[in-house]
Amino acid sequence: MGAITFSIEKKLTGALGRAGILTTPHGTVRTPAFVPVGTLATVKSITPEEIKALGAQIVLANTYHLYLQPGEAIMARAGGVGKFMHYDGPTMTDSGGFQVFSLGFARGHGVTKVLKKTEKRLSRDEQQGGHAKLVSVDEEGVTFMSHIDGSTHRFTPERSIEMQENIGADIIFAFDECTSPLLSREKMEASLKRTHRWAKRSFDAHTRKDQALFGIVQGGRYPDLRKQSAEYIASIDFDGFGIGGSFDKDDMTTIVGLVNEILPEGKPRHMLGIGEIEDLFEGVKRGIDLFDCALPTRIARNGTLLTANGKKDILKAEYKERFEPIEKNCGCYTCMNYTKAYLHHLFKANELLGYRLATIHNLYFIVHLVDAMRASIIDGSFFDLKKEFLAKYR
Amino acid sequence: MGAITFSIEKKLTGALGRAGILTTPHGTVRTPAFVPVGTLATVKSITPEEIKALGAQIVLANTYHLYLQPGEAIMARAGGVGKFMHYDGPTMTDSGGFQVFSLGFARGHGVTKVLKKTEKRLSRDEQQGGHAKLVSVDEEGVTFMSHIDGSTHRFTPERSIEMQENIGADIIFAFDECTSPLLSREKMEASLKRTHRWAKRSFDAHTRKDQALFGIVQGGRYPDLRKQSAEYIASIDFDGFGIGGSFDKDDMTTIVGLVNEILPEGKPRHMLGIGEIEDLFEGVKRGIDLFDCALPTRIARNGTLLTANGKKDILKAEYKERFEPIEKNCGCYTCMNYTKAYLHHLFKANELLGYRLATIHNLYFIVHLVDAMRASIIDGSFFDLKKEFLAKYR
Repeated sequence: MGAITFSIEKKLTGALGRAGILTTPHGTVRTPAFVPVGTLATVKSITPEEIKALGAQIVLANTYHLYLQPGEAIMARAGGVGKFMHYDGPTMTDSGGFQVFSLGFARGHGVTKVLKKTEKRLSRDEQQGGHAKLVSVDEEGVTFMSHIDGSTHRFTPERSIEMQENIGADIIFAFDECTSPLLSREKMEASLKRTHRWAKRSFDAHTRKDQALFGIVQGGRYPDLRKQSAEYIASIDFDGFGIGGSFDKDDMTTIVGLVNEILPEGKPRHMLGIGEIEDLFEGVKRGIDLFDCALPTRIARNGTLLTANGKKDILKAEYKERFEPIEKNCGCYTCMNYTKAYLHHLFKANELLGYRLATIHNLYFIVHLVDAMRASIIDGSFFDLKKEFLAKYR
Repeated sequence: MGAITFSIEKKLTGALGRAGILTTPHGTVRTPAFVPVGTLATVKSITPEEIKALGAQIVLANTYHLYLQPGEAIMARAGGVGKFMHYDGPTMTDSGGFQVFSLGFARGHGVTKVLKKTEKRLSRDEQQGGHAKLVSVDEEGVTFMSHIDGSTHRFTPERSIEMQENIGADIIFAFDECTSPLLSREKMEASLKRTHRWAKRSFDAHTRKDQALFGIVQGGRYPDLRKQSAEYIASIDFDGFGIGGSFDKDDMTTIVGLVNEILPEGKPRHMLGIGEIEDLFEGVKRGIDLFDCALPTRIARNGTLLTANGKKDILKAEYKERFEPIEKNCGCYTCMNYTKAYLHHLFKANELLGYRLATIHNLYFIVHLVDAMRASIIDGSFFDLKKEFLAKYR
């Protein structure tokens, strides 16, 4: 018996999607579920009480960031990330892989989750291996520079697992190599093989019985490599799976379906770093159980609010005298108590409360949307919900 | 019957201090009380529910700031500042006088509430009238430049009252001229006479019966001018009084006692912009009922925390692994749930939650301290509390 259990409550007819129940040492997560990102052991601007009140069931923190600040040892001494941040619900950490590569990359080319068509140009660095010069990979691990102070650090699969054991979340991830989606097939194949060796090393390094370990499927935009990866990762006795790396937006849905056909049905699947509404529907349809993404909280801090009719920029002058909530039927704390005019004012004045109220609304919106997808799987209305929702959401 | 009532519950023996009850259209304030500052219709980073939970009974917003952003008309259309910001408790606004002069001044010389000894040099501008060139005063009113965009604006006593009626707080203030405490006696006398004419004009301009209007006593560091001011302002049928302007720290306590000997006992007295612990004790002792100050919230956002042993800088490395609350016996949300180590981490990482948790703690600390002063007046232990508290607080 592992640290978690997962059971399927209902499946979609004619698709891979399912509603499930995931139990962790710190509570139950009804899936599919959206996972708010609390990078530095805080979901930016809000408290754990607010995280729960808005309906979130589980929080993901970033190992890379916590390693650099305040350091994983502090987290261990605090009794784990949950205790440290005063959150007693389920937690997960990523392996640090994505950040190591993307924050190195960030100064040059950008490992992003989904590339736009216009970004499909191969830079020389990308052709030469997919990483900027701030990141150097070898068989053993990765050497990189801190995005905070430029100091040099090294992660290996064993070190990532050790850090994640110190941070102490309920669910942790294998350490993987994240590459540019623009990588040539040859390079991607070599990278994937290394990711597989690192997956096994991560699995072997993991000692804490009260933590679940998820393996990560990579393979970029190449369907055959994705299949190969799903088969290999499924062959290791992980507690669940992440689908990671970057994909081309057009290929993403195909690939997710392909991978989930192969992964064992009885274990949970997490799609890493995806949070656009359309992608959530496509992922749920194809059997994804968990999604994390910093998008709804990041755009909230710029005054971009999610609504059933799409994203709205609260800074626009048209909201100055709109004495009504962001969304009339929204049950979030923000919509229950504040007007667009007030939020407009807070953002105009750069008031801290604005970031917070927008964060609460956006997370509530997306958490409840994924909850609605779950309910619609159970009552058989998923495809209606998808069609109706996406028709309005533009 | 005015908008407010004020009754005295208990008086100090041998001093002017008293515990009272102030009723407003939006609820009761047990005095003496500390009034958090919500400059732009928000107590920075916290919600009205948190304002109440930390024990605050009334909030002060700044007319100058709200006039510039979002504009007082918005507030009127929202149904008043309380409705606009989702706060149903008692509210007050200042007249805009202090900000007009101090924010103009800020580019040059600084009207501050309390000057340090080292700042007692008279600049040429101050000798010539006490205002920077960005502010121009005449008998009718003041022309000034916005600190936001440099645009030119004009306030008069009538305009200030009109704005405050639009903003709609329970308690509003007469419009006064705020000068440098370093002003010559001659200049101060002339300024005071104008402030008195403006007080009368403010009184005559006030129309809303559901708002109380407080007159403001000025007169700088000159005891005889302060007495003269208290007598004149007391002769107008204001609902209460503010003691305003800047004073030399050494003279402040003397002057407050002097003024409060003259002001009618049965009306509330507000000391404008004072929030240092020692000053609160001295003010309460001498019969001040209300204090507002941005200090506890402003220093909170720099990581400075108020404790029984004085101010602490949470950014200091010594707090990195201190897994204990800021204050062991503090009942605030922050101390009940978070450690110094976590707050240290949040401030190191510039996380928004840090500003919020520090704000909650500092406001709770100061609000409860003034509440303790009130309780000690009632049970006869005020002078013991003062002595014991100040002996530790350094």
